Amino acid sequence: MLHLNYTNILKTGIGSKHGISDKALRNFCIKNNPYVKDVMRSKKKGGYDFLNLPDNTSLLAKIKRLANEQSKNEWQNIVVLGIGGSSLGLSALKSALLGPLSQKPRLIVIDNIDPDYTEGILSRINISKTLFIVISKSGTTVEPMFLYGIVKQMLVAKNPKNYKKHFIFITDPKKGLLRKIGKEEGITMFDIPPKIGGRFSVLSSVGLVPASLAGIDIASLLKGAKTMREALKSSLPETNPALILASVQFLMDRKKSKNMTVVMPYSTSLFKVGLWYRQLLAESIGKNKKTGPTPLSALGTTDQHSMLQLFAEGPNDKLIIFMRVLKHMSDPSLNEVLPKEIGFLNNKKMSQIIDASYLGTSESLAKANRPNVTIEIPKVDARHIGMLLMLFEFQVALLGLMYKVDTFNQPGVEEGKIITKELLSNS
Amino acid sequence: MLHLNYTNILKTGIGSKHGISDKALRNFCIKNNPYVKDVMRSKKKGGYDFLNLPDNTSLLAKIKRLANEQSKNEWQNIVVLGIGGSSLGLSALKSALLGPLSQKPRLIVIDNIDPDYTEGILSRINISKTLFIVISKSGTTVEPMFLYGIVKQMLVAKNPKNYKKHFIFITDPKKGLLRKIGKEEGITMFDIPPKIGGRFSVLSSVGLVPASLAGIDIASLLKGAKTMREALKSSLPETNPALILASVQFLMDRKKSKNMTVVMPYSTSLFKVGLWYRQLLAESIGKNKKTGPTPLSALGTTDQHSMLQLFAEGPNDKLIIFMRVLKHMSDPSLNEVLPKEIGFLNNKKMSQIIDASYLGTSESLAKANRPNVTIEIPKVDARHIGMLLMLFEFQVALLGLMYKVDTFNQPGVEEGKIITKELLSNS
Repeated sequence: MLHLNYTNILKTGIGSKHGISDKALRNFCIKNNPYVKDVMRSKKKGGYDFLNLPDNTSLLAKIKRLANEQSKNEWQNIVVLGIGGSSLGLSALKSALLGPLSQKPRLIVIDNIDPDYTEGILSRINISKTLFIVISKSGTTVEPMFLYGIVKQMLVAKNPKNYKKHFIFITDPKKGLLRKIGKEEGITMFDIPPKIGGRFSVLSSVGLVPASLAGIDIASLLKGAKTMREALKSSLPETNPALILASVQFLMDRKKSKNMTVVMPYSTSLFKVGLWYRQLLAESIGKNKKTGPTPLSALGTTDQHSMLQLFAEGPNDKLIIFMRVLKHMSDPSLNEVLPKEIGFLNNKKMSQIIDASYLGTSESLAKANRPNVTIEIPKVDARHIGMLLMLFEFQVALLGLMYKVDTFNQPGVEEGKIITKELLSNS
Repeated sequence: MLHLNYTNILKTGIGSKHGISDKALRNFCIKNNPYVKDVMRSKKKGGYDFLNLPDNTSLLAKIKRLANEQSKNEWQNIVVLGIGGSSLGLSALKSALLGPLSQKPRLIVIDNIDPDYTEGILSRINISKTLFIVISKSGTTVEPMFLYGIVKQMLVAKNPKNYKKHFIFITDPKKGLLRKIGKEEGITMFDIPPKIGGRFSVLSSVGLVPASLAGIDIASLLKGAKTMREALKSSLPETNPALILASVQFLMDRKKSKNMTVVMPYSTSLFKVGLWYRQLLAESIGKNKKTGPTPLSALGTTDQHSMLQLFAEGPNDKLIIFMRVLKHMSDPSLNEVLPKEIGFLNNKKMSQIIDASYLGTSESLAKANRPNVTIEIPKVDARHIGMLLMLFEFQVALLGLMYKVDTFNQPGVEEGKIITKELLSNS
């Protein structure tokens, strides 16, 4: 199970100006505990439907059949055309569970409408050996639909009869333009549950279909998420990590003026979980011209050499969420190779270096009265990633109730879309 | 030349509560203009030495000879072991000028001491066909030195006699441990000018040697940087983009409570320039327990679907620096492929979509009184990237004088290093 260490936000750890007393935190958790039940009770209502995703075993069976069928095609590449909630969750899974450099099949996410980047990818892969997964709930999101058009005309030019087998659509089960196109053209489709919003969709077909085709163990992913959901449902308020994390974040923002939340895993694999969380927090809570801590992504140890100076000696306006991995899958170790000046590195495993760096950083920040919490993750596998994603989703749902905002809408992005569409329609 | 558009920070654009009057901005620029001369006059003093880097033509000749020699080895991979200022600039160059997916030779930057990530890379490349470039000024930075040790023992195990040709060191010209090791072992070395700090080192051997070996036109890069330096030196205060940008950032922070700066290029290639700038700003200005706007990296259009809701409707506490690319190298265009519901996308070039998205976003933010400026970049080539890097470096040097901090030190990172070393020495 994941464990949350919050010693370094307490008054005993970082002093009374920036810290919270253990008692105040407990009381806040107990007072807000009804929100945990509210979230669970809302499982059938609107965006809270994300809580049901780990129970969808029939989807697992359907994806398994798909994977069997598709394996015959021996795809070299799986290219996902999706943006925002249709790409960030998958990118987090890819980075956490597939590791660096190319795989077979290689999973590529095109999450921008950038000419040079798109051309850079499409000109360097063999599209005849590529499966394209188009993800859009409405089918009117400009970026994936334009990309779909570009890819379709490339595929049709190569092979007008057989281009359809290169596509899978993931979209609304009934409504919307992508569903309509898919029906007319007879393309394999998967459903996005109607009540699920993009940023809470990683455990639906949106994340699961491409992840599974790229070799990720999605059954374990869902099991982990379910385990976490059940644990959060039944924990005491003082030991519920989602409730504690939401409470710490809310109190730090409202009582201690920490209006930024930094997510800083000590693991390159987990960096993109931070980017996924960035959307989850920003779009869910950034509302009403006033609420919403600003999320920042950082990476340990890398950003010790980039952002740490500001975190340690700039304005004290941030809460840092560290992630610490307790056991790494592999662990290169050093023999007696380095000279005596840095001889303390000899005969060490790499995991010792990164972990000592985390400890040094979190302790030095606490000494400078900078609040930080740590999520301890036993190891980075599908089950624990499932737990982590559910923990964050549940935590943000609680935060929405604390801030009294509509967690599941994003009205602020409409104005720009309207102007963009006008510009394009008149050009 | 690059052009700075700052209409959307003026009172006329975003109202008087969040905007600055044109006159106040001009006056501030004129008042602070002496800092431009101060920076230029300081060329020989300390960290300001970065201004001289574009003049180092003898380094270009030396790198050319190196490239000729190394081409015989037909390396499949060039792997850089460096962190912070020794990796972020190069990663920015790679992303901007080499594009996505692998190249020959493939340039890989290992910028963390992460066991799974490192093993993921080292186990998937053929190290017998790989050149490793170790970058550390002191030779005591834990991450690259541990990685150097790991790679050395792998290479020695394969080929004890011939491992040295797999290494290049980039380090202090005289002092330090890496210089000492390099001398003893007879390894090819390049100098980091002694007064140059990591975050201002991209135009030194640190960025140039690996960039050149990977095929980047470093002569044009330096030419662009030089052109920008000369332009900044001689511009009138009201038209000097570095001075205006620094002034806007300072005034927005101090007078309008915008304590965050978002760098948001509408170009995937330029995203990592934003990550490089993050270090430049955070380490240079984040000082004295109070100063320093917090830098955030974002990407257009991608983050319209992630962060824009917060930018548009969260607290009004950010200045956004957009980057707009005027001409893309390639530009896929769409025929009559999409159905009428989104027919406005048909017969468009991809560049039109991304540019209309930028216009829609910046205009919608201005309508919501959110300050934003735009750096217009004619195209993403080596010359313009050189200009852009110099513009930002010069701007941050000016900002340091405005905030009255030591731009070139980073005392806040020492405490954590000491604790880490103690932990490792005692384990």
